[in-house]
Amino acid sequence: MQVPAKLWSLTATEVLSLIERDLLTAEDYAKELLSRIELRDGVVKAWQYLDPDLVLSQARALDRVPRDQRGRLHGVAIAVKDIMDTKDMPAEYGSVLYRGNRPSADASPVEILRRAGALIVGKTTTTEFAVLNSGPGTTNPHDANRTPGGSSAGSAAAVADFHVPLSLGTQTGGSVIRPASYTGTYAMKPTYNTVSGGGVKVASLEFDTIGYFARSIDDLKLATDVLRVTAQKPVGKTALNDVKVGFVKSPFWLSAGPGTIAAMAKAAEILRRHGVAVEDVEFPDAFSDATTLRRMFDVVFAADAGAAFYKDYLMDTSRTMLDPAIRAFVDEAPKLSRADVRQAFDYYAALRPVLDEIAERYSALVTPSATDEAPLGLGDMGSSVFNSVWTAAHMPVIHVPAFVGPNGMPVGLSLVARQYDDQHLLSIARILGGPLMSEGGWQETLVSSDS
Amino acid sequence: MQVPAKLWSLTATEVLSLIERDLLTAEDYAKELLSRIELRDGVVKAWQYLDPDLVLSQARALDRVPRDQRGRLHGVAIAVKDIMDTKDMPAEYGSVLYRGNRPSADASPVEILRRAGALIVGKTTTTEFAVLNSGPGTTNPHDANRTPGGSSAGSAAAVADFHVPLSLGTQTGGSVIRPASYTGTYAMKPTYNTVSGGGVKVASLEFDTIGYFARSIDDLKLATDVLRVTAQKPVGKTALNDVKVGFVKSPFWLSAGPGTIAAMAKAAEILRRHGVAVEDVEFPDAFSDATTLRRMFDVVFAADAGAAFYKDYLMDTSRTMLDPAIRAFVDEAPKLSRADVRQAFDYYAALRPVLDEIAERYSALVTPSATDEAPLGLGDMGSSVFNSVWTAAHMPVIHVPAFVGPNGMPVGLSLVARQYDDQHLLSIARILGGPLMSEGGWQETLVSSDS
Repeated sequence: MQVPAKLWSLTATEVLSLIERDLLTAEDYAKELLSRIELRDGVVKAWQYLDPDLVLSQARALDRVPRDQRGRLHGVAIAVKDIMDTKDMPAEYGSVLYRGNRPSADASPVEILRRAGALIVGKTTTTEFAVLNSGPGTTNPHDANRTPGGSSAGSAAAVADFHVPLSLGTQTGGSVIRPASYTGTYAMKPTYNTVSGGGVKVASLEFDTIGYFARSIDDLKLATDVLRVTAQKPVGKTALNDVKVGFVKSPFWLSAGPGTIAAMAKAAEILRRHGVAVEDVEFPDAFSDATTLRRMFDVVFAADAGAAFYKDYLMDTSRTMLDPAIRAFVDEAPKLSRADVRQAFDYYAALRPVLDEIAERYSALVTPSATDEAPLGLGDMGSSVFNSVWTAAHMPVIHVPAFVGPNGMPVGLSLVARQYDDQHLLSIARILGGPLMSEGGWQETLVSSDS
Repeated sequence: MQVPAKLWSLTATEVLSLIERDLLTAEDYAKELLSRIELRDGVVKAWQYLDPDLVLSQARALDRVPRDQRGRLHGVAIAVKDIMDTKDMPAEYGSVLYRGNRPSADASPVEILRRAGALIVGKTTTTEFAVLNSGPGTTNPHDANRTPGGSSAGSAAAVADFHVPLSLGTQTGGSVIRPASYTGTYAMKPTYNTVSGGGVKVASLEFDTIGYFARSIDDLKLATDVLRVTAQKPVGKTALNDVKVGFVKSPFWLSAGPGTIAAMAKAAEILRRHGVAVEDVEFPDAFSDATTLRRMFDVVFAADAGAAFYKDYLMDTSRTMLDPAIRAFVDEAPKLSRADVRQAFDYYAALRPVLDEIAERYSALVTPSATDEAPLGLGDMGSSVFNSVWTAAHMPVIHVPAFVGPNGMPVGLSLVARQYDDQHLLSIARILGGPLMSEGGWQETLVSSDS
C-alpha cells in the first residue's frame, strides 16, 4: 500500500490504519497537519491556541510508545473546544476574564482521549462561555464570508477544513449540530451525560452535552467507543428496506429556509427510492407549540446560567470583563418566578419519555439540523431552534452533511434516536448515510481545490 | 459589650457582629479556632488539610481590607469538604489517586464564599469520591466510638465540635443531612443546582447537590443568601398557629429505629401543643414502594457514576489506587439495561412535580433525617434511605437537631419544601425551630465540657 498524498485529508480511521502498519509516524502526520493549518488558518481562524512545538513533541512521544502499549486512538489528531480544561494548554472559555488561564488537569473527555493515545493538537475557538452567538473571527471553510456556526465554531471549522479529523465540542442548544450543518461535517451529540463534562465550563447543567465532529460515521463511532458512551450492542438491521424512519418537521418548521426544506424533501425521496419506509411524524399536541417549547427552554437555561455564572460574575470585579449578556443572566435569575422554573424543568422532563416513545417506533427520526445554509457574515452564528428540543430531550443526534443549499453551501439533516440508543443510531446512520451522501448533492471541494 | 470567652463557640452571625464593631479581628478569631482545633482534632480528626500559617496569613490579609470593601462573610471561618477544588490547598477527593492534587482554581461555592470575605480554614475529610460509606478516621464529637456519618464526615464534625461555625458539604444520597443528624448540627441542602457545583468532583450529575452545616438557622440563611440560592421573598407567615406541617414517615419507615420513631412522635406532640396544624402525609401509591424507590435511585446513580468515574478509572493504571467499588461502577455501567436507565430517570422526573404538589399543601414537610442516632464504630457511616428520595426530588431540606436518642446521641428531623422554596423553608425552620429546640431534649454539652 502506498501512503497517500494529502495525509491531512484522511479520516481518523484511515490514519490509525497507516500508523498501525508502520506506514506513518505520528510525527510525520502531525507535520502534515501543521502545514495544512499554516496554509489555511489565516483565513479560517479555527484555533484559539496551537503550539506547533508542543504538538511535535507530543507526536514524538507517541511514536516512542511501544506497540503493545498503544491506545485505540494512537496518533489521531484531535482539536478541543476551548471551553474544556487542558493541563498543558490554556483554557480561556471564550472569555477575556480567563485570558491565560492554565488549568491543572484535563477535562474528562480530554483525559479519556489523551489516554487512548490521541494527539491533542490545540484549542479551538468558541463564543464567550459557549453561550453568546458571535465573537470569534472563525470563518466557514467553504465561504470565508459566512459563519461556521457556533458556539463550537473552531471545532467545526477545523474538521471541515481538514486541520484534524476529529474534534470535541459541546452543545447546550445547537452548538454542535448546527455548525456541523453549516460546515458540512458529520457530528454527534450523544445521549446527555454519557460522556462526563467534568472540567468543562458549565452553562446549563440540564442541557450541556459533550459532542464531536468528524468526517465519517466510522470516526464518530470510534470517538463514541473510546469515550465509552454506551458500549451496548448495535442494531442488527442492515438492509435499507428493513429501515423505517420518521420525518419530523417539528413545531419549528416555519423557521425552515429553502435549503432545509429542499433537504428534507430530497432525503425522503432518496430513502423511499432505496426501499426505506418513510413516515411523517408530528409532535404530540401537548408539546406542539413552538413558542412554549422555546420559552420553557429559555427558562431552564436562565435558571441554570444564573447559578453557573455567579462565580464568574463575582470574579469580574471591574464589570468590564464579562459580556453584558452574561452578567444579565446573573442579574435576572432572582427575578424568575419559582413556579415558572419548576414548570419549565417539569415540562422537558415530561417530554423525554414522550419523544423516546415516538422514536422507538422508528429506526431513527429525521429532522432539520439548521434553518438553512450558513448565513452571510460573522455577527450572527445562526439559530438553534431545530436543535434545542433534542438537546433538552437528552436524545442522541447524528448530523449527516448530505445536501446543498441555494448558494452552494452544505446543508445536513439530523438523525435522532431514543436516549441511550447511541450505538443503534450509529448503525442506522451508516446504513442511511450511503445513499444520502451519494445522492444528496453535497460535494466536498476543499481536498481537490487546495494542495 | 464584652467579647465573650470561648469565641470558638460563636455562630457566624455572632462573629460577624463582633468583627463589624471592631471588637474582634479575623486574626484573633482564627487563633482561637486553631487552639480549639489543636485541642480537639486529635480525637475528632475532621481535617484532611489544615495549614495554620496559611489560615493566619489569610486572616491578617482580611484584617487589612478596608471596611467599605468587606464582604458579607468578612472573617467568618469556613471548612470545605475535600471533594471541592481549592486554589491554595490540595483537593484529594478522598482518594489516594489524587494525593497531593493541587487545583489551579477554587470550586464555584468556595470562590463565592472567599469573595464574600470568608476565611477558608482547610479541607475536611470525606470518603473516596464522596461515594464510599467508610474511610476517614473522623469520629463523632459527641462519642468518639461512633461515626459522624458520611460522606461529609469532616464538615459535619468540624461544625459540631466548634472548629468552625460553617462548612460546605455535598449530598448525593444523604451525605449532608445524615451526618448533621448524627452530630447534632443544623444543615441545609438547597434546591438542586441553585448553587453551582463547578469544580466539585462529580459522582452523580443528576443527584449531587451542594449543602452546608451550621449551628443556627441564621447561619444557614447567611450561607444561603451569600451563595445566592434563590434570593426570593421569604414566607410572610410568622405565627406558629398559621403553620401547617405534613409528617411524612415515608415508604422507608420500617427502617426507623427507636430514636427516629421517638423524634417524629415528639415533634408532632410539641408542634401540636404550640398550635401548629399537624397532618400525616403518605406517598402516592405510584411512588410508595420502598424497594422501587431505592432501585430507581441506584440505577440512575450507577449510570451517572459509570460516566463520572471513567476518567479516574483510566488514570488508575496500576488498578490499585481506586477502591474496587469505584472501579466496579465503571465496569458495570455498560451492563445496565438501556430501558432500565430510561425508566429510572423518568421515574424520578415524574416524582418531582408530585412531591412539589404535596409539599405545596403544607408550610413544610417533616420527615426523618436518619434511621436513628449515629451507629457505633467507624466502619459503617449509616444509611441514606430517609434522604435519597428528597435529594433525587431536588427539593430543599433543612435539618433541625432537636432530639436525643436512646444512647444520648443527637437525632434530628428534616424539614422539606417545594423546589426553589428555599427562603420559605428557612422562614418555616426558624419558626418551628424555637419550640423544637427548646423542648426536643437535645442538649449541647461540648461548650461547657471543654475549656
